[in-house]
Amino acid sequence: MSYRIEKDTMGEVKVPADKLWGAQTERSRKNFKIGPSASMPLEIVYGFAYLKKAAAYTNCELGALSTEKRDLIAQVCDEILTGKHDEQFPLVIWQTGSGTQSNMNVNEVVANRAHQLAGHVVGEGEKTIQPNDDVNKSQSSNDTFPTGMHIAAYKKIVETTIPGVKQLRDTLKKKSEAFNHVVKIGRTHLMDATPLTLGQELSGYVAQLNHGINALENTLPHLSELALGGTAVGTGLNTPKGYSKRVAEYIAEFTGLPFVTAPNKFEALAAHDALVETHGALKQLAVSLNKIANDVRMMASGPRSGIGEIIIPANEPGSSIMPGKVNPTQCEALTMVCAQVMGNDVAIAVGGMQGHYELNVFKPVMAANVLQSAQLIGDACVSFEENCAVGIEPNHDVIKKLLNNSLMLVTALNTKIGYYKAAEIANTAHKNGTTLKEEAINLGYVTAQDYDTWVKPEDMVGSLK
Amino acid sequence: MSYRIEKDTMGEVKVPADKLWGAQTERSRKNFKIGPSASMPLEIVYGFAYLKKAAAYTNCELGALSTEKRDLIAQVCDEILTGKHDEQFPLVIWQTGSGTQSNMNVNEVVANRAHQLAGHVVGEGEKTIQPNDDVNKSQSSNDTFPTGMHIAAYKKIVETTIPGVKQLRDTLKKKSEAFNHVVKIGRTHLMDATPLTLGQELSGYVAQLNHGINALENTLPHLSELALGGTAVGTGLNTPKGYSKRVAEYIAEFTGLPFVTAPNKFEALAAHDALVETHGALKQLAVSLNKIANDVRMMASGPRSGIGEIIIPANEPGSSIMPGKVNPTQCEALTMVCAQVMGNDVAIAVGGMQGHYELNVFKPVMAANVLQSAQLIGDACVSFEENCAVGIEPNHDVIKKLLNNSLMLVTALNTKIGYYKAAEIANTAHKNGTTLKEEAINLGYVTAQDYDTWVKPEDMVGSLK
Amino acid sequence: MSYRIEKDTMGEVKVPADKLWGAQTERSRKNFKIGPSASMPLEIVYGFAYLKKAAAYTNCELGALSTEKRDLIAQVCDEILTGKHDEQFPLVIWQTGSGTQSNMNVNEVVANRAHQLAGHVVGEGEKTIQPNDDVNKSQSSNDTFPTGMHIAAYKKIVETTIPGVKQLRDTLKKKSEAFNHVVKIGRTHLMDATPLTLGQELSGYVAQLNHGINALENTLPHLSELALGGTAVGTGLNTPKGYSKRVAEYIAEFTGLPFVTAPNKFEALAAHDALVETHGALKQLAVSLNKIANDVRMMASGPRSGIGEIIIPANEPGSSIMPGKVNPTQCEALTMVCAQVMGNDVAIAVGGMQGHYELNVFKPVMAANVLQSAQLIGDACVSFEENCAVGIEPNHDVIKKLLNNSLMLVTALNTKIGYYKAAEIANTAHKNGTTLKEEAINLGYVTAQDYDTWVKPEDMVGSLK
Amino acid sequence: MSYRIEKDTMGEVKVPADKLWGAQTERSRKNFKIGPSASMPLEIVYGFAYLKKAAAYTNCELGALSTEKRDLIAQVCDEILTGKHDEQFPLVIWQTGSGTQSNMNVNEVVANRAHQLAGHVVGEGEKTIQPNDDVNKSQSSNDTFPTGMHIAAYKKIVETTIPGVKQLRDTLKKKSEAFNHVVKIGRTHLMDATPLTLGQELSGYVAQLNHGINALENTLPHLSELALGGTAVGTGLNTPKGYSKRVAEYIAEFTGLPFVTAPNKFEALAAHDALVETHGALKQLAVSLNKIANDVRMMASGPRSGIGEIIIPANEPGSSIMPGKVNPTQCEALTMVCAQVMGNDVAIAVGGMQGHYELNVFKPVMAANVLQSAQLIGDACVSFEENCAVGIEPNHDVIKKLLNNSLMLVTALNTKIGYYKAAEIANTAHKNGTTLKEEAINLGYVTAQDYDTWVKPEDMVGSLK
Repeated sequence: MSYRIEKDTMGEVKVPADKLWGAQTERSRKNFKIGPSASMPLEIVYGFAYLKKAAAYTNCELGALSTEKRDLIAQVCDEILTGKHDEQFPLVIWQTGSGTQSNMNVNEVVANRAHQLAGHVVGEGEKTIQPNDDVNKSQSSNDTFPTGMHIAAYKKIVETTIPGVKQLRDTLKKKSEAFNHVVKIGRTHLMDATPLTLGQELSGYVAQLNHGINALENTLPHLSELALGGTAVGTGLNTPKGYSKRVAEYIAEFTGLPFVTAPNKFEALAAHDALVETHGALKQLAVSLNKIANDVRMMASGPRSGIGEIIIPANEPGSSIMPGKVNPTQCEALTMVCAQVMGNDVAIAVGGMQGHYELNVFKPVMAANVLQSAQLIGDACVSFEENCAVGIEPNHDVIKKLLNNSLMLVTALNTKIGYYKAAEIANTAHKNGTTLKEEAINLGYVTAQDYDTWVKPEDMVGSLK
Repeated sequence: MSYRIEKDTMGEVKVPADKLWGAQTERSRKNFKIGPSASMPLEIVYGFAYLKKAAAYTNCELGALSTEKRDLIAQVCDEILTGKHDEQFPLVIWQTGSGTQSNMNVNEVVANRAHQLAGHVVGEGEKTIQPNDDVNKSQSSNDTFPTGMHIAAYKKIVETTIPGVKQLRDTLKKKSEAFNHVVKIGRTHLMDATPLTLGQELSGYVAQLNHGINALENTLPHLSELALGGTAVGTGLNTPKGYSKRVAEYIAEFTGLPFVTAPNKFEALAAHDALVETHGALKQLAVSLNKIANDVRMMASGPRSGIGEIIIPANEPGSSIMPGKVNPTQCEALTMVCAQVMGNDVAIAVGGMQGHYELNVFKPVMAANVLQSAQLIGDACVSFEENCAVGIEPNHDVIKKLLNNSLMLVTALNTKIGYYKAAEIANTAHKNGTTLKEEAINLGYVTAQDYDTWVKPEDMVGSLK
Repeated sequence: MSYRIEKDTMGEVKVPADKLWGAQTERSRKNFKIGPSASMPLEIVYGFAYLKKAAAYTNCELGALSTEKRDLIAQVCDEILTGKHDEQFPLVIWQTGSGTQSNMNVNEVVANRAHQLAGHVVGEGEKTIQPNDDVNKSQSSNDTFPTGMHIAAYKKIVETTIPGVKQLRDTLKKKSEAFNHVVKIGRTHLMDATPLTLGQELSGYVAQLNHGINALENTLPHLSELALGGTAVGTGLNTPKGYSKRVAEYIAEFTGLPFVTAPNKFEALAAHDALVETHGALKQLAVSLNKIANDVRMMASGPRSGIGEIIIPANEPGSSIMPGKVNPTQCEALTMVCAQVMGNDVAIAVGGMQGHYELNVFKPVMAANVLQSAQLIGDACVSFEENCAVGIEPNHDVIKKLLNNSLMLVTALNTKIGYYKAAEIANTAHKNGTTLKEEAINLGYVTAQDYDTWVKPEDMVGSLK
Repeated sequence: MSYRIEKDTMGEVKVPADKLWGAQTERSRKNFKIGPSASMPLEIVYGFAYLKKAAAYTNCELGALSTEKRDLIAQVCDEILTGKHDEQFPLVIWQTGSGTQSNMNVNEVVANRAHQLAGHVVGEGEKTIQPNDDVNKSQSSNDTFPTGMHIAAYKKIVETTIPGVKQLRDTLKKKSEAFNHVVKIGRTHLMDATPLTLGQELSGYVAQLNHGINALENTLPHLSELALGGTAVGTGLNTPKGYSKRVAEYIAEFTGLPFVTAPNKFEALAAHDALVETHGALKQLAVSLNKIANDVRMMASGPRSGIGEIIIPANEPGSSIMPGKVNPTQCEALTMVCAQVMGNDVAIAVGGMQGHYELNVFKPVMAANVLQSAQLIGDACVSFEENCAVGIEPNHDVIKKLLNNSLMLVTALNTKIGYYKAAEIANTAHKNGTTLKEEAINLGYVTAQDYDTWVKPEDMVGSLK
């Protein structure tokens, strides 16, 4: 491999000749060989691209950067956002906890690429754009990285997570309406209970997801607060007057999202409670989705020796040894995602609680976990919706059989003959393996006619909306 | 000990003669000897007292219960709320997961006490009030227990947690304002950084707590939704028309809190995402408080060999072996609370994710953990405020010494002489153990006069509000 | 209430006249009003009683304490261990993180009670025994509290947890053997799979618990290491020569457990990885028990519309509204315990990871969580064993019906006619709602005779041990 | 892109012509678009390569597979282990929870590549080797996947984790010995305490890591148990006699690791407590490493306004805005890894606790998290060792200054003049900002000569080993 020489305040470093990064990126590659390379999420790099461009515009507007430099920086940022420089960001999550080296990675790539765009060869001549003095102007790693991670997380939440959850919610809602009159046995403690409709059952899932979406949306205002302008410790040292407000406006404009400058920059650097808050809502969604997926697979269990009240799509051969078996694989993928999200929640909290003085140095691990959860929940909801939920159908025969077999219809008699007599009927039928009606009559508590009038499952499910 | 005989659908049970509970409570005591007795939080019992009274009023209003019975039930509920029957609730958290046995415990105590109030002897004659047919009328464990836990949690949050956090927040805010001009060295990566004021530093904590309070308040609407009226599976079987809305109104009236009937009862029984949601915000507060308490103890460390920038109150002899030592004990109590809350968050999520069909059967463990966290955070904030935060004072001598020693003031020169030269000055002073000013002049980059003009810590802290 | 005056290095304090504690305990009560009083586990107080007595014996043996003082101290410690002074320990978990105040609580109670035993009145005359100079001789909070918590945790594990788990394991083993020939349908992905015996199924649970017990026992050597002798920072300052080894021997003798002095006292004070390690095994048991309890309740589900392959004991009326319903309440209590233990594991790890320099100051929260988990798992296993596992019986009718209905017996044909043909048979029977045998013959792949020879569930369950 | 047609029991599927996988892999790609592609760890694929080869050898030896087929299968497995087919495994973690599709991915790739090696063109003619009937012979996804994950995890632990931790442990041990006589101030509660040596302090870290390694090694026997031979539900249906023991022997031979067949196959399929157990030890190491890294960064803090007792290597420019600043970046990377591992522990436990009947379907998420933690801890220990620990040096000037300034040397007087007088001296010096010696003499408790004789820090650190 051929190399060129790059330098920083510590001296010279050999960098692969075909790469745009500089000395500090290369040092980081060597010093942090932890896990697979390039684990730092590209979404954060793209967040940096937005903010570097916004900073260039703001600096220029406030007289701190020339128009030429602004335009060069902006041009490279736009290129980064197309994905064409993805290979230029080789660093890992497990680097300096402020993400300094990823900030420098972006600064170096922007500077070197700008040098190219200005007609020069990387590594030759004085850099047209300086990584520190130009690209990083009015910035510090300490305010750029949290800004980058807020941009990345916010975008992921509104572009992937919420649409994914809503897609599933909408389908469950349609199914709930479609099955609104399918009366089935209810189950509490996994035991037979009074009836409800399949539509009612699904409506509970819809309510869960609505609450989850609402909880997630409640966290967005905090996430929309950007640290940029705080520089090293939150005081905004070395920024032009008016910078922080203006740079947030540019970011809002470039991303089309309602970002604002954080009212308190000290909080925005030293704590990342916004990520904790947002992930709390993602965890809540994981809790909900686990419940839903679990119900679906239990209701679909069988085909002969399970519950079998619903039928789910067969998407793949289920087993390499057992022919004809179709498994609830989408439920399994989704619940595995839920397990991961629950774990990520702890990783994020552990990172969030350990800020020291003016800086929390668990930024990369917190951001990476939020982004993973947000992506996985969004994707898994879509996958579950497309490959499972949309195809859920009642198995009417089974539903009817289980309903009519049930002893719990006896509850309908509670208000007619009292709790103790109703219990006696049910207990007797249970003991004798008979039906409720038989025993109700045998015990002399109810006539056949009354039984039929009083015990109607469809009358036991409340008023249907 | 003397006993009386109580009975339920399974037969007779011997109950201690001096207790008001009945057969089902006694069975539960015997069947669930897990951990210390009476671990079920009394707050939940009180929640039941509110809802049993509300149910009696609603049943009466809707023609399902006589005025005499309503008044007897209400009278016992009011007695329970005074705390006079606390000894009558011996059950544990680790019982049936729907809390059925605690519901029956309340039903039995209300019935037996009502019998007394009606002038009879417990255990003699037919019960004036039936536990199932009267006290539990229009109810099921499945909708009462979640109602009781929402009432308990909501009350705890608004009566203990939020006031506690606000008390601490207000004191930190006052301190922040009082110390707004105390310039000190900043620290990032635990390393010396550019200066800020002690007031600015504390303002970050205030911002954290404000965000935490806001996050917690965002969860209250979900928590205000009551399951009551859903009965066994959410359909509201065996409730009079109009019951669920009316009973929530009574609860709102009796508690003075804005409770409403849950729009979807299936969700309200089968999932407890509202508890997950609320505790997510409590966890966020724990994350914030851990950061704050950790900073305080690091800044107070010493007295001779630590950081020593602030002085905290000496509340007790710090050590049994080391005389004269005063420890940050309030920080320690608070951070231990934070650790517990982080653990509780997982317990709650694990419980929340495992609902099955129409019922989540992790109700008691979820509720107990939410109540513990809510209590501990509220109490610990008050304790920390009263015994630590209120007495925080700057150690001006130390603050000044550390500030003036610092090499990081060199950052003020970045915009004057460029990043590389500024770095050279700092590096040289670091190497030689000299001051920045000496080396700035020695290296010929700055005159003494310019140095004094340019490097003013008080000018480096931004515009103070 | 009447008071007496006690004093410490900070001055005078009013203490309730009828209590044995002194100034520092009283300060702690006032300064840490966090959660319910007396939450510090009594097991830790008893651990202190063992170690204070052992320290007195060692100090005496090494010439640092008179025989009279030794005997007085030992006598009080023995009294404490009978439980007669339980009311004298009012402090909470949420105190100083080293447990200093609980150490002083014990020192003060021992000193004052010894004063009584020596014929004096508490609060009058010079103390016969000094809390610091005598009871705490050769000790510090920093080495006593971790010693006390190791003693408490070790005892709880070997006296409650392991016996409880073994009691359940033994019963499951007996059931496994008893049901060794009960062939039933297997289930993977909750879907019908090839058969196994109920005994085999239970043998998996036994193997889980055996692994869990083994994992827990593997952690005991670390837990047997005692910090005592390290005093304030681990150097053993102010201890007589030979003290640390000898005092551990006395503790081993008094407790009958194999305690040893920690080879490295710095680790023993600054980190509590032994608690992390032990609780890791408790968490593993929780994971196992959750799986087992979950299986049991799914297999017992019904009575008419669930799986219903096993019958579990009916211990209480299952519902306040639904007569005749019996719920898997022991499974619910046990899985709630599992959820709590999983949460406690995080609380402990969060505490364990935050030690600073020579001292971890999350001792009380770590110890309390370990003790709670150890107690709950032990108790819940016993409760589950006595009230559920011991009564598990196969529902032979259901088991046979579900087995013979199953399509998965087709797997027996895989090796006879190949995977694809076997799949075709199963798929066809599934589509037509017919039996495997019918379709196997219809499709011409197998004769009736061959079918009966080849498809024998009892031949598909492997060699039974 | 060009395609070929592959088929399975569900029909035909178009597969990219240049890929070796088949129909089921392709279906999985389409049905599980969750997160980045190919997230299933290659280590598990390699685990499969070992076991497929071992199965082929065993099947051949037991007469169930021809030598030709055995050799073809073995040849492809060996190729896979060189990494040359890494591109052929595109599936994600978030697939069926049994890992069925990854098992089929391997089966399909082996079959198609064997077809090539036999001189044919993939997609043309009958397959030389059948994915199900040959490659998967005597196997099921349900026993292969857990076998693959045990192989992968065991290898990772012994090849990456343990060597990494030992490398760090050894360096810390050397440092501990080298600094054995460097007396410094101790700190408890972050407050000045009695002295110890820097070597003693580091010895505590060594003890932590030794305990952690020991804990991890204790888990290996469980991890060495292989599910292979259990097939679909643990009964070993469709395996030749003697198969399970023999196949484990082959795996042991091929990997050089002490694998054995699991004594209980039902546990080995239905529960993955071995992963829970192993990761419990990884979490313990994370707890230890977090403590160590935290101490290092606090002791290295400064350079002027922190503790500054040790000097750590400067590996990169520390900040983009603050010249001359060198940050504890290795500590930050390591503690971020610890946060991730703590989160992963929860993900694994949540997966582990949810097994149903004969199969746990959280296999991929559990395995992926164990592998990530094992890799990250191993890598981060090496990185921390090479780039930080190896270069730790005492800052003797600072250490001496802080030691001599300290008030806590007064503890040396406890045994000479009693606790109360010693406390008075310290308190007075603290109040007056004077030295202990001055006040000891002023108060008339000690002569100058006695002071110098009694207060020797080097005598306060115990006997050094």
